[in-house]
Amino acid sequence: MKALVLERKDELALRDVALDEKLGTRDVRIGLRNVGICGSDMHYYTHGRIGPFVVREPMILGHEAAGVVVETGAEVRELKAGDRVCMEPGIPDPNSRASRLGKYNLDPAVRFWATPPVHGVLRPTVVHPADFTFKLPDGVSLAAGAMCEPLAIGVHAATKAQVQPGDLAVVTGAGTIGMVTVLAAVAAGCARVIVSDVDDAKLALAEKLGPVMGANIRSKRLADVVQEESEGWGADVIFEASGNEKAAAEVFDLVCPGGRVLFVGMPPEPISYDVTKAQIKEARVEHVFRYAHVYRRTVAMLGSGKIDVGPLITQTFPFKDSLQAFEFAKRPPPGSVKVQIELPG
Amino acid sequence: MKALVLERKDELALRDVALDEKLGTRDVRIGLRNVGICGSDMHYYTHGRIGPFVVREPMILGHEAAGVVVETGAEVRELKAGDRVCMEPGIPDPNSRASRLGKYNLDPAVRFWATPPVHGVLRPTVVHPADFTFKLPDGVSLAAGAMCEPLAIGVHAATKAQVQPGDLAVVTGAGTIGMVTVLAAVAAGCARVIVSDVDDAKLALAEKLGPVMGANIRSKRLADVVQEESEGWGADVIFEASGNEKAAAEVFDLVCPGGRVLFVGMPPEPISYDVTKAQIKEARVEHVFRYAHVYRRTVAMLGSGKIDVGPLITQTFPFKDSLQAFEFAKRPPPGSVKVQIELPG
Amino acid sequence: MKALVLERKDELALRDVALDEKLGTRDVRIGLRNVGICGSDMHYYTHGRIGPFVVREPMILGHEAAGVVVETGAEVRELKAGDRVCMEPGIPDPNSRASRLGKYNLDPAVRFWATPPVHGVLRPTVVHPADFTFKLPDGVSLAAGAMCEPLAIGVHAATKAQVQPGDLAVVTGAGTIGMVTVLAAVAAGCARVIVSDVDDAKLALAEKLGPVMGANIRSKRLADVVQEESEGWGADVIFEASGNEKAAAEVFDLVCPGGRVLFVGMPPEPISYDVTKAQIKEARVEHVFRYAHVYRRTVAMLGSGKIDVGPLITQTFPFKDSLQAFEFAKRPPPGSVKVQIELPG
Amino acid sequence: MKALVLERKDELALRDVALDEKLGTRDVRIGLRNVGICGSDMHYYTHGRIGPFVVREPMILGHEAAGVVVETGAEVRELKAGDRVCMEPGIPDPNSRASRLGKYNLDPAVRFWATPPVHGVLRPTVVHPADFTFKLPDGVSLAAGAMCEPLAIGVHAATKAQVQPGDLAVVTGAGTIGMVTVLAAVAAGCARVIVSDVDDAKLALAEKLGPVMGANIRSKRLADVVQEESEGWGADVIFEASGNEKAAAEVFDLVCPGGRVLFVGMPPEPISYDVTKAQIKEARVEHVFRYAHVYRRTVAMLGSGKIDVGPLITQTFPFKDSLQAFEFAKRPPPGSVKVQIELPG
Repeated sequence: MKALVLERKDELALRDVALDEKLGTRDVRIGLRNVGICGSDMHYYTHGRIGPFVVREPMILGHEAAGVVVETGAEVRELKAGDRVCMEPGIPDPNSRASRLGKYNLDPAVRFWATPPVHGVLRPTVVHPADFTFKLPDGVSLAAGAMCEPLAIGVHAATKAQVQPGDLAVVTGAGTIGMVTVLAAVAAGCARVIVSDVDDAKLALAEKLGPVMGANIRSKRLADVVQEESEGWGADVIFEASGNEKAAAEVFDLVCPGGRVLFVGMPPEPISYDVTKAQIKEARVEHVFRYAHVYRRTVAMLGSGKIDVGPLITQTFPFKDSLQAFEFAKRPPPGSVKVQIELPG
Repeated sequence: MKALVLERKDELALRDVALDEKLGTRDVRIGLRNVGICGSDMHYYTHGRIGPFVVREPMILGHEAAGVVVETGAEVRELKAGDRVCMEPGIPDPNSRASRLGKYNLDPAVRFWATPPVHGVLRPTVVHPADFTFKLPDGVSLAAGAMCEPLAIGVHAATKAQVQPGDLAVVTGAGTIGMVTVLAAVAAGCARVIVSDVDDAKLALAEKLGPVMGANIRSKRLADVVQEESEGWGADVIFEASGNEKAAAEVFDLVCPGGRVLFVGMPPEPISYDVTKAQIKEARVEHVFRYAHVYRRTVAMLGSGKIDVGPLITQTFPFKDSLQAFEFAKRPPPGSVKVQIELPG
Repeated sequence: MKALVLERKDELALRDVALDEKLGTRDVRIGLRNVGICGSDMHYYTHGRIGPFVVREPMILGHEAAGVVVETGAEVRELKAGDRVCMEPGIPDPNSRASRLGKYNLDPAVRFWATPPVHGVLRPTVVHPADFTFKLPDGVSLAAGAMCEPLAIGVHAATKAQVQPGDLAVVTGAGTIGMVTVLAAVAAGCARVIVSDVDDAKLALAEKLGPVMGANIRSKRLADVVQEESEGWGADVIFEASGNEKAAAEVFDLVCPGGRVLFVGMPPEPISYDVTKAQIKEARVEHVFRYAHVYRRTVAMLGSGKIDVGPLITQTFPFKDSLQAFEFAKRPPPGSVKVQIELPG
Repeated sequence: MKALVLERKDELALRDVALDEKLGTRDVRIGLRNVGICGSDMHYYTHGRIGPFVVREPMILGHEAAGVVVETGAEVRELKAGDRVCMEPGIPDPNSRASRLGKYNLDPAVRFWATPPVHGVLRPTVVHPADFTFKLPDGVSLAAGAMCEPLAIGVHAATKAQVQPGDLAVVTGAGTIGMVTVLAAVAAGCARVIVSDVDDAKLALAEKLGPVMGANIRSKRLADVVQEESEGWGADVIFEASGNEKAAAEVFDLVCPGGRVLFVGMPPEPISYDVTKAQIKEARVEHVFRYAHVYRRTVAMLGSGKIDVGPLITQTFPFKDSLQAFEFAKRPPPGSVKVQIELPG
């Protein structure tokens, strides 16, 4: 099958790959349709590694995906050929200690698409467990379905945040992760969300997602904005979604007494952490790693119209132009959020 | 001042009452504008009592109220004359054990408007603590402000339910409490809400409030509807808002394994409770009594447009026609939800 | 192998049973040593059924068990022949929705020892998954190991109760379930536990388990005792462990504002439930069904000496006298809590 | 009255101070008996300040106190002259936003004994609100009562940790805060506690407090000990009680997937925080600042024998030798934990 292969750092090819995937009794075979380009795809492309994960063999990229079921295993009842679906890209060991506790995202043995040495899905078909494949409701496009992957991170973060209806939230960073976190925070009950970034076009887009106020931190201090909007009390929840060390270090200036801080972005370097500042507010900090058990909920919210991811898909390329898509996404123009690749049906 | 007085069971009068309320240093004096008629007002009118609370002296009715500040106490900084406000109708003892624990709604010494022997606010002015008076944001009408009182019950219920984004909820009963619970459940993150009633007009109104499906239990079993909508799993959260013993007894047929049940309505008689049925699902049950610490959040959600209570105010009468308003609300037509009385500005 | 077989209602036999159990790669074969007689064993014996579970074929009894590993499957690393172990008697489907959520006790497909049609373990050996087999630390006897099963219910209840250090708890009923709940409540942080029963000998035994006060409800009202011990506030946690409808209906008289009620016992009939009484206290109710993920913790507490189940094992019979053991347990003398059967090593 | 006055940095005096304290209607006057020397007393003595709190006027030291009621205000019913009591040293504003939410420890306006400019209680009598004064049960000594103050921090930490019965905990640091945290962690349900320090005498003392294992980090890596004791999984709860930047930075190496980290000690400088390391475990972090609503629980646990603070009081000096007591506590010998001063009765 023809696939988008990362041959090595800095070298992509759209070429044939020999893959012979067996269909297990609880598996489905899916024809891929929409695949988003994630920051991690880009990072493997430009750096050849992410932390301990190193691209040593050619690897197919792509893990934000939706498609159409083409074949089902003998024991699959809940899906049938023709169903439009999206898929969780990580498959945990169901018998690991973490999985059994209901926290399969913390299972170190998870096999995750486009994380070396596991192939991704920028290719015509893939075999996947039915338990990690979710039927899209009528009215949810395949493009929206492929957005479930990043959106699930936001939904997981908002779930762990235990958002209470009427909360004031801050999201630092208006990239894809920031944007889906904004959507999830609003859906989860926040009365208002303040989002910070340096790109006015992205902030303008964010403000269209709900009761959202953009704050360009080139022109004002985020702490001042939060102070003013909360009458000096602080925000109930801070979602750090930039992965920027400086932003991450400032969260305890923003949060209210008894508030919550969620680290969603992954700062590459250790941050400076003033424990005492967090203590006098008794802040609760939660750390987010992918997601567990939120796809079904995420799909339900897309289906009921509670969340609309449409505005976040800012560019779409046909599969044959995958290399151009990656070049575009490497140096995106202001306001670009999610670039998707569309495979032929 | 001229007030709507419940002289005794079945006898209302719009007449002068001599009230001389002193303004404490942390109080404000408010000119009332919009006051909703609550089921409890009606019940005192038609029965002269609610449980242990008996109308022994003439009592002014009304506790769902909004108005305009006319005077502020010496130590009030956060409000000023002219501010449009809504008010929590219950004033707890700040030093009670419950209040100090942050659960002032459980303080038995709370003084609550229009609960004997405390006067309500269907009258021109009232003196109230600034701590229980909340400024309405621009764009929130006084009529909407007066809806904060019932809405706060829904928001409190949704908060205690620990709604997770994407939950499926059931609300039994589409009266005022059911409707505000629907609004709060949607705002708090539910992907979808199924609401049950016997009045098609109310169900139609409920369906306009968001991703809501009405179920008329005259024509179908609620358990069947939930079964179908949840693919046999059950709903994540059940809000019992009817106060009907039969509906209350059926909640454990509706809830999913590990789900939550909220008793919001107050059934007048004990219900039959099959403990084992709740055990095999390990249902969590929470009981709702008024609200605590949710007014500020409720006002914020009205202000940001996250919740729109407009559709619930189905009739409005001028203050001079208060008696007609009560007669109307006693035998409301199908689809009638909240009747408000408007005082002259 | 020779086993204790319930042939049908009221008929037990110690006789040969042909069982040929294959050892899977993740299984262990265990030589049974100590098996407690549970109320459910007795109920199948005297009634031939428990609710929907009917004894239609001869069934081996017994599910509270400890023993010694005799053989291990090819992929078992954590256990070896000679290890002293106790076992969870229920084996869920790891891929059920409930199991994947971490709540395998709510999986309706669970196979549970001595629940028709699944054989129990009053027999020489059994094959069991290593994941549900737990090594006993040095110093924990096999008799204590067999007590892990009922104790796990108490530990699960205390975990769901979210006991806070210093809580006052009430346990209604001083049978085995009441006693293990007392032990777990004390271990989980309660400063004091009040336990009610009608058997003074059991209450005396309970008082030896820690800071425990027995209340014989033949001579005083439990509500009065709680009132006095809590200075009128109520108890923080109520564990209903009697399964008695009258006791179960009174829990909301005992609990404090904002307190928690745990239904551990399973009342055979629906109880009368005054919802309003629970509402004015905003009680939280949790329902307990077996346990999930607590065996490891339970064994750890036995190993560190935090919990001592020794006093609860009031009688032990050799395997050859199993029928006498059941006769004894059918009409136990005052003070009798747990009767165990000991198999030859 | 004669009091222990910190005149200025490095200068203590036992001298007369003119204090005329009025007894409010809800106050009690207490004759002090036992007062512990806290690290903060010592720090004011040796540095003249703690962060923003600077000793500008002579200030009486001491805030860990117990005594005997000598006089009660007109509205105090729950206490009487002669009652043996301990006292919370911080008095919040009951109407602050934090206090009303039940989190009075986060009220910035709290007045705390021996925190400039508020006098402490190394003096014969003090007037204090009855609401923050707690009667000691029979069998709890005044010396133990004075230990409630540091112990309350441990109990608050263990409460916020949501310890589950059977948890494995780590406490870093075996000073007073570490020791009371060990006691609280054991009381709150931990099966075992590993405590680290560099003082073998303190570790030996800690091991006498329950199922506790000392780890001298001069001779082994704490991460190795935790790894071994948890079979490679990590500890369920980490209580950082040393305030040491290095220890605080290592907590995420010790915690298990989904585990909790409590910052109890207050590191003077920012620590280095590897967010990603915490993310792959989705650690929950809670920050501890003093305590709220735990004194009553703490006293109850002392009263029921659940916690014994006796071993932690390693030295006692008479009031007249207060200066020697401070000199002793400034350079304590190995194994010294809490130094108390005893006032004449």
